Amino acid sequence: MLELLATGASNDFQEVVFHQVQAGGKRIRPALTILFCEAAGGKMEDALSTAAAIELVHNYSLILDDIIDDADVRRNLPTTWTKYGLNFGILASTHYREAIEEGSLQSPNHKAISRIIADTIRELVEGERLDVLFEQLPSDEDYTEKHRFREVSLEDYERMIGYKTAALLRAACEVGVICANGSKDLQHAAREFGWKAGIAFQLADDVLDLFAEEEKLGKKLGKDIYEHKLGNVVILHSLQLLSTDDRDYVLRVLRSETPTESDVKKVIGLLKQTDASSIVKDRAKELVNEAKKSIELFPNKEVTKLLKALVDFIYQRSF
Amino acid sequence: MLELLATGASNDFQEVVFHQVQAGGKRIRPALTILFCEAAGGKMEDALSTAAAIELVHNYSLILDDIIDDADVRRNLPTTWTKYGLNFGILASTHYREAIEEGSLQSPNHKAISRIIADTIRELVEGERLDVLFEQLPSDEDYTEKHRFREVSLEDYERMIGYKTAALLRAACEVGVICANGSKDLQHAAREFGWKAGIAFQLADDVLDLFAEEEKLGKKLGKDIYEHKLGNVVILHSLQLLSTDDRDYVLRVLRSETPTESDVKKVIGLLKQTDASSIVKDRAKELVNEAKKSIELFPNKEVTKLLKALVDFIYQRSF
Repeated sequence: MLELLATGASNDFQEVVFHQVQAGGKRIRPALTILFCEAAGGKMEDALSTAAAIELVHNYSLILDDIIDDADVRRNLPTTWTKYGLNFGILASTHYREAIEEGSLQSPNHKAISRIIADTIRELVEGERLDVLFEQLPSDEDYTEKHRFREVSLEDYERMIGYKTAALLRAACEVGVICANGSKDLQHAAREFGWKAGIAFQLADDVLDLFAEEEKLGKKLGKDIYEHKLGNVVILHSLQLLSTDDRDYVLRVLRSETPTESDVKKVIGLLKQTDASSIVKDRAKELVNEAKKSIELFPNKEVTKLLKALVDFIYQRSF
Repeated sequence: MLELLATGASNDFQEVVFHQVQAGGKRIRPALTILFCEAAGGKMEDALSTAAAIELVHNYSLILDDIIDDADVRRNLPTTWTKYGLNFGILASTHYREAIEEGSLQSPNHKAISRIIADTIRELVEGERLDVLFEQLPSDEDYTEKHRFREVSLEDYERMIGYKTAALLRAACEVGVICANGSKDLQHAAREFGWKAGIAFQLADDVLDLFAEEEKLGKKLGKDIYEHKLGNVVILHSLQLLSTDDRDYVLRVLRSETPTESDVKKVIGLLKQTDASSIVKDRAKELVNEAKKSIELFPNKEVTKLLKALVDFIYQRSF
């Protein structure tokens, strides 16, 4: 990744563009790309540039997401735009896209891979657009106010996280198979696995955002509440389960300009008392099982086993 | 361009992404791509997707440039981020990059073209980075303040506009030849033409920014002064020609937080009294002549003549 990012970046600029990837991360997406390449009978080396490109897509979206959400801290470090200013945050993200391009140009079957990456980034943009419009604070911008969601259904939510999270995990899996020249059937199975794992991953993330231990999370607990987001599945389910009074209270906090820490804690307490978390847990479990089933047809059984362990990890980290 | 932009954009989002290209423009860059394709013996149709991608690169850079420069108006219309808010300005620009990708994937010899476009966008980013660092207002951001240019030499300036303007005109010409499967010699000649025309184009733009008629310009006269930029060649030459008192006055206005309209007018008056404009004019004339000479070897003489007329237009529009 650093090699791809260094290409065409002046010395003074490298510090800025390296910051985001050097902050670390679980690297689940590139692991999926490499494992799916191997599962389909390819070699790890065939998938390295592509895997790096995929992880850079993720980091590209994080830089932009932090600007859009006005987020100061990620993985216990200042975000790129906070550390280097908004202008350099934007320029860094623009440079990331070309590092991604470099990685996809170095991939086997690069035309197919470039197309998947382009489609996926467009989906990330649409997911981010919906996420912004799910915000519950009235906006002084005409376009936002006109298109803002006053209520968010579970279908709206699934559409948003499909674009914002599952699409990239689906792409990570699919391009792995393409690096190995895998059949259309294997590509299709990889897509299904990635999509379902991706939705499960986001459900887990929503639970973690509200109920994790703060030090492990690396960012503020209840970030979705502070950011006035209705795009958290636990909140959406809870709204259907709470008493009218509690429901109104939760919505009032979500819609208040600057919720206090004690407001947020109280909201989290209310959410915890509902069955929302276990409904989400059951749904995630179901998706994880379906994902595992979808990859039975891969020839390399050793690697298929690892993929199943990986999707279990996604599930277990939060429940 | 609208077709490429519509791909993967939801109905609600199309309005946002169409705004920038629908504001118009001279379309010089796609004209160069098509003409160089024809000059090298190719057909116009072979270059259409590529030409659209090149003009989208230009518009992509304009959306970002307006965000970074805090610019409200372009071509007599509100800029994308002013009209739709910062978040949607950023999301629109991100979507533009994928419309560019779509255009380059539809190009003949698309791998070569994708690489040139990626290299060029990285150069645009570096040019924008330098342009930001040429600003004369002290910044409260550590990175900007550490790397800011206290003085800007003519070499610094040429490096900046090389990246920010000439690189894309060079790419526009080169990819045209590649669409026609033109020889390495023709590619090289096209690059030289584009680079020199690009520098001349920027010199003309700097003159226009200070001395044009405001209604024709479509934006505020003296924008570079309001934006505290030392990245204008007329200002750089003038600083060497003015008396110490006048020089100090010009720098004081450039470094003041909010220069008044009468300050800016007085600065423009002082700049006008120097020989800076005619020095710039001579340099542009020289570059235009060299550019014309570099394309003598193209087989299609009809089109070569048109290219020469185009580069003359670039020169004449400002002097």
